[in-house]
Order: sequence, then structure tokens, then C-alpha cells
Amino acid sequence: MEMSSKLLERAVAEISQLPGIGKRTALRLALHLLKQPADQTQQLAEALQKLREDIVFCSKCHNISDAEVCHICENPHRDASVICVVEDIRDVMAIENTGLFKGVYHVLGGKISPIEGIGPGQLTIVQLVTKVKAGGVRELIFALSGTMEGDTTNFYIYRQVKECDVVISAIARGIAVGDELEFADEVTLGRSIMHRVPFENSIKSH
Amino acid sequence: MEMSSKLLERAVAEISQLPGIGKRTALRLALHLLKQPADQTQQLAEALQKLREDIVFCSKCHNISDAEVCHICENPHRDASVICVVEDIRDVMAIENTGLFKGVYHVLGGKISPIEGIGPGQLTIVQLVTKVKAGGVRELIFALSGTMEGDTTNFYIYRQVKECDVVISAIARGIAVGDELEFADEVTLGRSIMHRVPFENSIKSH
Repeated sequence: MEMSSKLLERAVAEISQLPGIGKRTALRLALHLLKQPADQTQQLAEALQKLREDIVFCSKCHNISDAEVCHICENPHRDASVICVVEDIRDVMAIENTGLFKGVYHVLGGKISPIEGIGPGQLTIVQLVTKVKAGGVRELIFALSGTMEGDTTNFYIYRQVKECDVVISAIARGIAVGDELEFADEVTLGRSIMHRVPFENSIKSH
Repeated sequence: MEMSSKLLERAVAEISQLPGIGKRTALRLALHLLKQPADQTQQLAEALQKLREDIVFCSKCHNISDAEVCHICENPHRDASVICVVEDIRDVMAIENTGLFKGVYHVLGGKISPIEGIGPGQLTIVQLVTKVKAGGVRELIFALSGTMEGDTTNFYIYRQVKECDVVISAIARGIAVGDELEFADEVTLGRSIMHRVPFENSIKSH
């Protein structure tokens, strides 16, 4: 696309490097910013710079944080002996939103994926294993995505901590609340039946 | 969404002010930037700031420009006596991409739309009329969108310049090249027939 301004061209090139944003959308966003007060662009640019420069990852759980230890790990009301292992920060937010988990997290930073070239060394697996081996951890809950990569990662960690005195569990897989059985895939439905829970438990879970 | 970082929260809030970008997408973009080298965020932020601060609008055609007069208006090979009237900068790019127009542009900055609260005063109509009345303009080509607002704007300008010695035309409306007749709407097909062109012209137009 021929543009009459190098400044616009550069902005569009930079914006379209973001995932899921093509040249056309980038142009639309750039032209939108030009129509808004200069303040808005200034604040957006500043927020991005500050985010990238000042953010730290919690030294305990590797969650995104403004301080050396995040507010979850710091909270005395959270049970540090129950660790929920998740892929990334968004999973922490999703579980926090349920309000049902009172333990702490360990953010792996991804899952083992030979196809994407992600090995165990690029994740925070060593830190997790060290934490477990140091003792004081009662339960490890695997809350990774239910894909082959997720299973591989779970199993990789499992092999390294199975000798430790720790309960290792995984989040339940099954038919989502509100979903119709007939549209569920067979594997999920199968797991739902195999991992059935006492009825009294099933009704007080929410 | 509960976030563990105020920096992240602020960045997400700023990003999600962009049109078509919700909280979820904003979060995905912010986390993406955190995974990339800090350079990328720095360059994105800088490009946005420079765009907003340094950009100017061509004093002649109101197109986006890096200099006081844009490179189209400045080009001695362009015919300044033929002015194509468009809504915004994207339309200039679209027409430039055809490579078939050798005149200059006049960017209105929108179209008259009482519903959106846009009156003639917020557009560059006065500047266009002044330009035409000053003389030296041979033809005015209306290339606004074929909506009621576009037609209103065309007519509003037409009434102010019709006494001037200037040819006033509008871009052709019709069936798109490659389109099947049976799927065209009636109004477009009707215009295609009414505004038919000599066959010899139709084959050399591309």
C-alpha cells in the first residue's frame, strides 16, 4: 500500500507486527489515533514502555508482578503448600476469577512443544522441581491445557517429583457446566464418566 | 479481570481503547509484547508518538503528509486542475493503488452525517470551495462512498460550485469487474445499464 507519509508507514509497520493484526487493521488503528487527542497516543505509548521496562516476574511463582514477590505469594491467607501449575499468566487470572482456589501458583511460561522448539529448559520446570524437593509442598495440581503438549509437560514434571512426598493431581476434565451431552466429544464425555464424583459433591461445587 | 500487576492493567486499559480491540485481545497483545525483546515495544511506542506528534496534513489537499505540501500535490507531473474529492486518507491510497489517476486530491475528512453529528463545518468543504472559486480547476470528481451521507455531501458541495466554470463528475457506479450480474443489487445494476459506455472504451479501461 502506497502511503503518503513515512511516519504513517513506520507506525503501520510496527503495529502490524502484533499478532493477529494485519496491515489494514494497523492502518485503521493508526488513523484512529490521529483523529483522537494527542494525549491518548501519548498515554498508550507510555503504558507500553512502562509495562515492558518496569515489569518483573514474581521470584516465587513467576507470575507477572509489580514487585519482587507477587501479591498472591505474599498473601498470608493463601496456602503455599498447594501449588497449581499453569502454562501462563492468563491461566492464573482465569483461576483467580473463579475465587475457588486458595493455594499458590507456579507459572511454567509455556508447555513442552518439540514442534515449536520449546524444550523443558525454556520453562520454569527446574525451579518447580527444586521447590518441591525443598519440602513444604503438600500438593501439586496440574492445570495445563488438555493437549498432547500439556500431557507431555505434566508427565515430564511428574517423573521428577513422583519420589517426593507430594500429592500430584490434575484438574478435572469433563462436560462443561451448562453444556449438552450430545455435542460433547467422546474423549471428554468418557473422562466425565470415568472421573464421576459423588452426587452430593457435584451439587455443592458451585 | 483480576490482574496481578498495575502496569499490565494500565497497558491493557490503554490498548483496549483502540477501536475493535476488547480487553481480552488487549491482554493477549500486552503479554505478546512481554515475550518479545524490549526493543520491539520501544519501537512501537516511539513510532506511535512520532506519528501523532510530527505528522501534518498537506496544506493543499489535507492528505496526511510528512511535509507542509504532500508529495502528490508537489509532483509536477500531476494535473492540479483535476481534483478528486474523497472522504479520507484511505481513499487516496486506494485510488493511488490503481495507478490510473493523474490529478490531485482533496480530502474532506469525512462526510456530512447529521446522525453522527458531523456538519459541513467539520469537513474541509470551505477550503475546497475556495480553491474552486479561485480558478484554475477544470474538473471536480466526486469519489465519496455511495451512501446517503456521501450523496448529501456531494450535493452540498455541488450547490456551492455549480456556478463556477468547472466540470463536475462522479466516479462510475456499477457491477464490479469479475462480479456476476445475478448477485448484484438492483440499484447498482440499474446504474450500470443507465451509465453504459461505448464497448471500445470498456475494453481499454484496464
